[in-house]
Amino acid sequence: MRIGIVGGTGDIGEGMAMRLSQTHDVRLGSRDVTKAGEASRECHLQVEGRGLPCAIDGSSNQEAADFGEMVILAIPFKHLVGTLESVSGLEGKVVVSPVNPMERREFFTYVPPEEGSAAQLVQRLLPDSKVVAAFNVIAANRWKALDEPLDYAVPVCGDDPEAKRTVLDLVAEVPRLQGYDAGPLGTACMVECITPLLLNVARYNKMRDVGILFR
Amino acid sequence: MRIGIVGGTGDIGEGMAMRLSQTHDVRLGSRDVTKAGEASRECHLQVEGRGLPCAIDGSSNQEAADFGEMVILAIPFKHLVGTLESVSGLEGKVVVSPVNPMERREFFTYVPPEEGSAAQLVQRLLPDSKVVAAFNVIAANRWKALDEPLDYAVPVCGDDPEAKRTVLDLVAEVPRLQGYDAGPLGTACMVECITPLLLNVARYNKMRDVGILFR
Repeated sequence: MRIGIVGGTGDIGEGMAMRLSQTHDVRLGSRDVTKAGEASRECHLQVEGRGLPCAIDGSSNQEAADFGEMVILAIPFKHLVGTLESVSGLEGKVVVSPVNPMERREFFTYVPPEEGSAAQLVQRLLPDSKVVAAFNVIAANRWKALDEPLDYAVPVCGDDPEAKRTVLDLVAEVPRLQGYDAGPLGTACMVECITPLLLNVARYNKMRDVGILFR
Repeated sequence: MRIGIVGGTGDIGEGMAMRLSQTHDVRLGSRDVTKAGEASRECHLQVEGRGLPCAIDGSSNQEAADFGEMVILAIPFKHLVGTLESVSGLEGKVVVSPVNPMERREFFTYVPPEEGSAAQLVQRLLPDSKVVAAFNVIAANRWKALDEPLDYAVPVCGDDPEAKRTVLDLVAEVPRLQGYDAGPLGTACMVECITPLLLNVARYNKMRDVGILFR
């Protein structure tokens, strides 16, 4: 599958690119094409350095959006609206939101937009795309730790069953990663708010990069 | 420790009583004292039938509240306010809320009160109690499955460090149960909303009594 990662030069985008480019064609997009090229070279170095295949190229965000059958929005919440206004042509595509709207106050707090969740905001801005919330609760450092399996749960929310199935199939390809259908897009708030919870758990228990498993 | 369970004849209260009465003195309260007696006898049967000690008695909710140094509110959210108005004398005590305000609509949805979470509502109604949110995300059936370890995470939220420590110590006594300080009481919404998420995951993936682990 062709996967475009918008905002791919952030930690989470680069980490996802490293894992997914072993089995898919990935276009890693950025506002800054030079940075995208550097991030792409770093991915090649890390992945191919382990004797694994790596199909990845750096590009602009728009080229990543054009390239992908699936487009992943690896963007901090504060840049979500601005970035989506700067790219076009996402109609009909599977658009994956791993975005968690949160703020660091006295503790990490979930601060959803009025639509109810970041994923629902994306769906409002992209009414003709098939928006799926997924990969919200895996720390960037875990994606990038290529020598360790990603032994985590990935709750997946979306209103389009076929798009959700495509994402669940992608999850299933990553060793140990366990995808779960968490329901329609309206359930995304319950997934997005796990991340500030995990950041609090990490902070108050002196842990790092905490993830979840379902059992 | 003396533990009072208010609403102890529900599934979750009875299950918690079975586990906790093996090492603590438990008073299982109910609006209906006859039902409390029956639930208590069932606990004795199950626990002592396995050759384990069982210190438990049925009582009214008020007697359970009076008895406990720690008082657990094993009440569905819809009965929370009414039950708290019917008991008194909780000042200064550790009051544990495993309550999850949620509704079954198209899917299970987190519906917090205006205080932000059930735990914060309890704290408003009991300003002189030490309210701690804990045990929110373990299914009643798991508590009652005495032959299986409770291999789950228990995020614990509260504003009183000593009360939170008491609850974390209690968690640590239950084999395999893993307690985590999740922060002040203001973080309870992020814990309470895991339960509707888990109910959705169970429903959409044909699973039962899903719980979580942190890793």
